[in-house]
Amino acid sequence: MGPIDWQVTARDGEARTGILTTRRSVIETPVFMPVGTQGTVKGVRFEWLEDEHDARIILGNTYHLFLRPGPDVIRQLGGLHKFSTWSRSFLTDSGGFQVFSLTDLRKLSEDGVEFRSHIDGDLKFLSPEVSMDIQAALGSEIVMVFDECLPGDVGRDETRRSMELTARWAKRSKERFVDLQNDGGDTGYKLSGDDISGAQALFGIVQGAGHIDIRIESLSRTVEIGFDGYALGGLSVGEEKQVMYEVLERIAPQMPTDAPRYLMGVGTPEDLLEAVSHGIDMFDCVLPTRNGRTGHAFTSRGGLNIRNSRFRTDTAALDPDCICSVCSRYSRAYLAHLYRAGEMLAATLISHHNLFFFLDTMRRVRQSITLGTFAEFKREYLENLKQNGQSAAL
Amino acid sequence: MGPIDWQVTARDGEARTGILTTRRSVIETPVFMPVGTQGTVKGVRFEWLEDEHDARIILGNTYHLFLRPGPDVIRQLGGLHKFSTWSRSFLTDSGGFQVFSLTDLRKLSEDGVEFRSHIDGDLKFLSPEVSMDIQAALGSEIVMVFDECLPGDVGRDETRRSMELTARWAKRSKERFVDLQNDGGDTGYKLSGDDISGAQALFGIVQGAGHIDIRIESLSRTVEIGFDGYALGGLSVGEEKQVMYEVLERIAPQMPTDAPRYLMGVGTPEDLLEAVSHGIDMFDCVLPTRNGRTGHAFTSRGGLNIRNSRFRTDTAALDPDCICSVCSRYSRAYLAHLYRAGEMLAATLISHHNLFFFLDTMRRVRQSITLGTFAEFKREYLENLKQNGQSAAL
Repeated sequence: MGPIDWQVTARDGEARTGILTTRRSVIETPVFMPVGTQGTVKGVRFEWLEDEHDARIILGNTYHLFLRPGPDVIRQLGGLHKFSTWSRSFLTDSGGFQVFSLTDLRKLSEDGVEFRSHIDGDLKFLSPEVSMDIQAALGSEIVMVFDECLPGDVGRDETRRSMELTARWAKRSKERFVDLQNDGGDTGYKLSGDDISGAQALFGIVQGAGHIDIRIESLSRTVEIGFDGYALGGLSVGEEKQVMYEVLERIAPQMPTDAPRYLMGVGTPEDLLEAVSHGIDMFDCVLPTRNGRTGHAFTSRGGLNIRNSRFRTDTAALDPDCICSVCSRYSRAYLAHLYRAGEMLAATLISHHNLFFFLDTMRRVRQSITLGTFAEFKREYLENLKQNGQSAAL
Repeated sequence: MGPIDWQVTARDGEARTGILTTRRSVIETPVFMPVGTQGTVKGVRFEWLEDEHDARIILGNTYHLFLRPGPDVIRQLGGLHKFSTWSRSFLTDSGGFQVFSLTDLRKLSEDGVEFRSHIDGDLKFLSPEVSMDIQAALGSEIVMVFDECLPGDVGRDETRRSMELTARWAKRSKERFVDLQNDGGDTGYKLSGDDISGAQALFGIVQGAGHIDIRIESLSRTVEIGFDGYALGGLSVGEEKQVMYEVLERIAPQMPTDAPRYLMGVGTPEDLLEAVSHGIDMFDCVLPTRNGRTGHAFTSRGGLNIRNSRFRTDTAALDPDCICSVCSRYSRAYLAHLYRAGEMLAATLISHHNLFFFLDTMRRVRQSITLGTFAEFKREYLENLKQNGQSAAL
């Protein structure tokens, strides 16, 4: 009896649908997880995510919550679920990605990483053990191992060195994780049925940049340690799109078939479909909300930017084919006005639609896999995205 | 058959409840109207205002909508209701207050006011006629005459000169307004029952600063012209609180009893209760949303500022006595975190609560008037406000 249950329900080529059960929710995969960096999905109230988007799992960022409000405050308040009131599942990342990309990095050692907070410049330390401690305080359903994240353009030697460090850190992550589960460190513990243990799940991360052989070795060493699920990290970090697609094609099908596969931090609608076709089950990305805040909408006909002056008198919905509460009610002209007028509701409403579009895309993906028509769906979906004459990602 | 119907339903001293029926909604008074400056109530989706706050009328600002997106765009798109999707009532101000307070004022003449837009510095012109034209393009249910608004501290001579100009402008406003109604200029025209004409209503504005005799003359000249309702303008504009309270006490009861009385731009919960006690029926104020954006919450026990460090681990609701969706779910600790983390949902959620608090206060006011216990209610309400040791207005 493990912390999660994972059952494949249909296959279509390498693509697959499944049911992922955690102690707090039942998640149909492939799934897109909205990013709730600081314990909130930017601009969109949980009430909407529950009632309209029907999101079953969202992401929380260990790095941000470590710095503010801090694991002590969250532990004191009963964990991230109780603190934030999100009662469905959380997946928390390890903090590694942000440490290596956002901060003034001070010192990388075998032990961990010393860095300065991007908020106040305070010296902080993250390591496999510290990351597990924080994620136990958060009490997320799915914990990620602490890994080193490299930029997309490093060479073989550096990639190998980093992959090996990541492998050692994965082992240390698991050891500390197990101790924390045994010692009652997890604030989210919850008995919820015969098949679920009530503890946290831990996912391993495969690194190796664009070097297929290093990726394969990383995968093998990660599987050897043994995790509840497996992630591909270090993609969509500046490398050529073709590099990511090759890694997906070569590595994803070799990942364990009986555990969920998670492609971290990806991506555009095009990327999601490509990854699903190689057997990926889980995704997260800031694009729907980050782009929403700058007026970029994702639609079934491709991207559009509400700042474009042609929308000032356009009475159509952001996406005429979308049934979300924003597209059902508000016009592009009104949203264009809100954006120009500096009203925060512009960001709220466009982010709301974008998230709906991503989750609806995954609903349609799952349906097509179930029907055995995924390839056809993918072709039509990508064809439709070209209508606006620009990429959906913009 | 007029554009609005107005019936008093109960009296308690000078205080009164009533039913104000417009072509688009039935409004129980005394009523607090949320401010929707740019065709949106800042940070709070219409869906909440309809379903939870049950707001029946909101305010739109002619000045802001004049500058952006402009009356031509709104007319082309069918008026403010269609443009914004708010299908209940709008009251629009005349633009006068903003022109005299926000802008680089260029030239005041008998004809009107030349000023520079605060957005792009463009030279613009507002007059009684232009204001009526814009408000007809907006298609609001209640139109306000164009008046001159003075700061709170001007002398008698200047106040008299200004009041006389306002009286002449009121006459011109009405003339243009009548022409616009006859010529089909109103985009919001709507037949909605036997007792309502479907046209816009026009309210006059009583000026005169703190000079009671000039106020009385202004009232008499305004009533002589004849309007569907009467407003007190030029209060809460920097004068001593006692000045406003004296004007309310001396002037409000002399305003026509068979038409709604509107106190413009006021105010704190204390001010609302004081004004109701002198027979005021309608209010608007930016305090709930403006304070919400800076972390100030209005509660039944007085004001609090979520930035205060003592709230970082406070698991209580913003207002433990409030039943709104924010207080029912989120803790002060979580809201404090959102605010410190710079999350826009902090503003959204606190604004939402503040508006609920104001509208709920007015529900309780109406109930107490109906029961004949308004004086008692007012005493207890004001007593409770002192519990946090600071004014609810902060």
